[in-house]
Amino acid sequence: MADTAEPGSSSLRHAGLMQVLHALALGRCSSVALTRDCLAAIERDHALNAWTWVDAEGALAAAAASDARRAAGKPLGRLDGVPVAIKDNIDVAGMPTSLGLPAREVALAPRDAAVVDRLRGAGAVLLGKTNLDEAALGTLGGNPHFGDVGNPALPGRAAGGSSAGSAAAVAAGHAIVALGTDTMGSVRIPAAFCGLVGLKPTFGHLPVAGVAPALRRADVVGVIARGVEDASLVLGQLVGLDAHGGGRQACLPFAAPDWSAGQVRAGVVGDLAALGTDASVRAAFAAAMARCAPVFGDVQPLALDLATLEVARTRRAALLLMEAELLAAHAETLVRGSPRLRAMLDYAKRKSAVDYAHADRLLDLHVARVCALFERFDVLLLPTVPVAPPPLGSEEPPNLADFTALASLAGCPALSLPLGDGVGLQLVGAPRSDLRLLELGEVLQALVDCPPE
Amino acid sequence: MADTAEPGSSSLRHAGLMQVLHALALGRCSSVALTRDCLAAIERDHALNAWTWVDAEGALAAAAASDARRAAGKPLGRLDGVPVAIKDNIDVAGMPTSLGLPAREVALAPRDAAVVDRLRGAGAVLLGKTNLDEAALGTLGGNPHFGDVGNPALPGRAAGGSSAGSAAAVAAGHAIVALGTDTMGSVRIPAAFCGLVGLKPTFGHLPVAGVAPALRRADVVGVIARGVEDASLVLGQLVGLDAHGGGRQACLPFAAPDWSAGQVRAGVVGDLAALGTDASVRAAFAAAMARCAPVFGDVQPLALDLATLEVARTRRAALLLMEAELLAAHAETLVRGSPRLRAMLDYAKRKSAVDYAHADRLLDLHVARVCALFERFDVLLLPTVPVAPPPLGSEEPPNLADFTALASLAGCPALSLPLGDGVGLQLVGAPRSDLRLLELGEVLQALVDCPPE
Repeated sequence: MADTAEPGSSSLRHAGLMQVLHALALGRCSSVALTRDCLAAIERDHALNAWTWVDAEGALAAAAASDARRAAGKPLGRLDGVPVAIKDNIDVAGMPTSLGLPAREVALAPRDAAVVDRLRGAGAVLLGKTNLDEAALGTLGGNPHFGDVGNPALPGRAAGGSSAGSAAAVAAGHAIVALGTDTMGSVRIPAAFCGLVGLKPTFGHLPVAGVAPALRRADVVGVIARGVEDASLVLGQLVGLDAHGGGRQACLPFAAPDWSAGQVRAGVVGDLAALGTDASVRAAFAAAMARCAPVFGDVQPLALDLATLEVARTRRAALLLMEAELLAAHAETLVRGSPRLRAMLDYAKRKSAVDYAHADRLLDLHVARVCALFERFDVLLLPTVPVAPPPLGSEEPPNLADFTALASLAGCPALSLPLGDGVGLQLVGAPRSDLRLLELGEVLQALVDCPPE
Repeated sequence: MADTAEPGSSSLRHAGLMQVLHALALGRCSSVALTRDCLAAIERDHALNAWTWVDAEGALAAAAASDARRAAGKPLGRLDGVPVAIKDNIDVAGMPTSLGLPAREVALAPRDAAVVDRLRGAGAVLLGKTNLDEAALGTLGGNPHFGDVGNPALPGRAAGGSSAGSAAAVAAGHAIVALGTDTMGSVRIPAAFCGLVGLKPTFGHLPVAGVAPALRRADVVGVIARGVEDASLVLGQLVGLDAHGGGRQACLPFAAPDWSAGQVRAGVVGDLAALGTDASVRAAFAAAMARCAPVFGDVQPLALDLATLEVARTRRAALLLMEAELLAAHAETLVRGSPRLRAMLDYAKRKSAVDYAHADRLLDLHVARVCALFERFDVLLLPTVPVAPPPLGSEEPPNLADFTALASLAGCPALSLPLGDGVGLQLVGAPRSDLRLLELGEVLQALVDCPPE
């Protein structure tokens, strides 16, 4: 191994997780060299505003420790030496948690969030914290305190939010994978806009201890990565029971990924134009559907009308709950927010407790409606976002999160695959069908990337 | 058997469930005779205002069918032929569900609530629906539309609420057992006031389909009966999975009732006077504790201060959620409520969505605080109600449900045993410890009833 020496790792920081792990295992690259490369790129790309906090010293020390373990033939876990990025609403011990808001004084988190603890336990190198919409309440990655997050894949365009910095960091080669949070689409939207894979697992499976709550009946930690297999591997490290509670549902294991090509019952959303979907998004989605036909085989995909699910109304109901919960959880932090944020949150103050209860009931109805779909379908297919990535600094299109909130508010797993130009192909499955969705996602991604002649 | 003929069943309608089942099984009494006796008593006692709806014809037909089954040696289930009463916020097919409010038009429930379906499946004879506080929102059994419910055990006193009619019906010998609902004490309070046993199972175990929702994070169906063993038997018939959902927690089986006399770690509430408990209630509770000493044996009961649990503040938070949820669920019915009820509910309209979220968080804290107690204790012991039953028509003492809400809002099972004069001894256990609580309750009841010389 020593004779392959230490080649430049400048390309490796853009590689998929499997390739990185392979190179680290074979000694073709050290974690220190890779981490140093990532840190240099972060420094160079500061105009992207992808990060709120970078711990260069801690990351290099962790990388050196990883290299020592690998040299001793005793790697810590499956992510040993891999540089990762953590969204800045998830606690990392020794780093502040800004939630995208200016701090009165910098308080360092005393301990890791449970998911971070698991990544660290698997050997991951924690580079720092990534930028997000103020209070994680946004869909474009705009932040008046840390700067709007740029889109490395589509310069001049928004990165998508709220896990904007996590997506930008992976897209720019600052980190190999990143954690985000997804309450109504916050992992999938920036993954789609930045040309990456975004995974939102079934609600209640990953621990939320140490994650700033937004809407507790929907909050989940998700993964942003360069490929489906990368997201699968990270999910495997994150799964476990939440000793500290916080989720509202019992933790059930994922279902086995039983499916067969040619027998997948797909529900393809048919009323895209009526739901305000851009023509360019519709064209990319239709082209992808054509390429995916072999997977569905004899079982013709059925058209599914989203209008019956009242996605926009349901998302607005969830927004009220989220604003109220944010104020209840973070009142003293939120007063330092921008006038725009405070105006949004004031809406919750003006709504009554009865409005809250009404919204909560509407969300219960949504769970029942969406779960009923999975009696007929194994997977729902729709674009991740109805609009193409708008220019940096744009106003948020009001329907931007409608397609992602669908799965979030029903607790379903969802996966976004990149179709190019910031368009995502979204797969939504029944609760607990995460593993089937990931396998199906790998197959569909291959078909989309290499169309049959 | 035939030679014992058909004696008058006038005493049997006051008997315990076991005795009734024995008499029915041996043919010493027919279900028709017993049911006719109950119906006659209901008629006679109309001034008690215990019932909102009586189905004499249906009950007698069900009783005759039961007698025919028993004659054929094929009883339907463990409750075959037993007359039961159902609180009028639980659907019974073919009867209206008033929720204690005047109906614009009488609509008959199309199907049984899941718990009623199970009682009917076990052969129970459904007599009708019992009176309750308006919208189940009260603690004394006052109802401006159906009349205030009287207390058969203590004439001139309130029956306690909100399952007032269910308790009065059992106490007056109108029914052998009754179903109530308990969100903050509504089964245990009237059971204590009327000298009966009241059981509130662990939250989430019994199905709530067909039960009018009040506070969904606490609503449970409970049992009012003449003895602990009666409540145990009925619970066994009611337990099962809720196919229709509605509860927010997964249904886990009850824990096995493992405990040993002399080794029970009891937490006895010590700051009763500071919590506004009547001297008469404190004296009855202290006397009962002295008699129960043998069960605790070497393990000295520890004093527990409720002040740290902020029971009153927590109960008020729950009340806000309940008022908001009631309005969201039953707005069109509630407008027909009394000015007093509408004033209570208007409170929820004046509170904001953020207040709701704050209250919800306070309730989460309460769950954590109470569940933590069960690391030190197997059972908590306290009076069921801090005050003695007030005269009929009194204003509600503000602290009346403080001691019962403690268990309700933490999801814990709780059992109230009669100590006489309307005072109840309450046992509260960890979630899922229902069976241990019932066994312990039988032992304590025996000690309280027959003090060692």
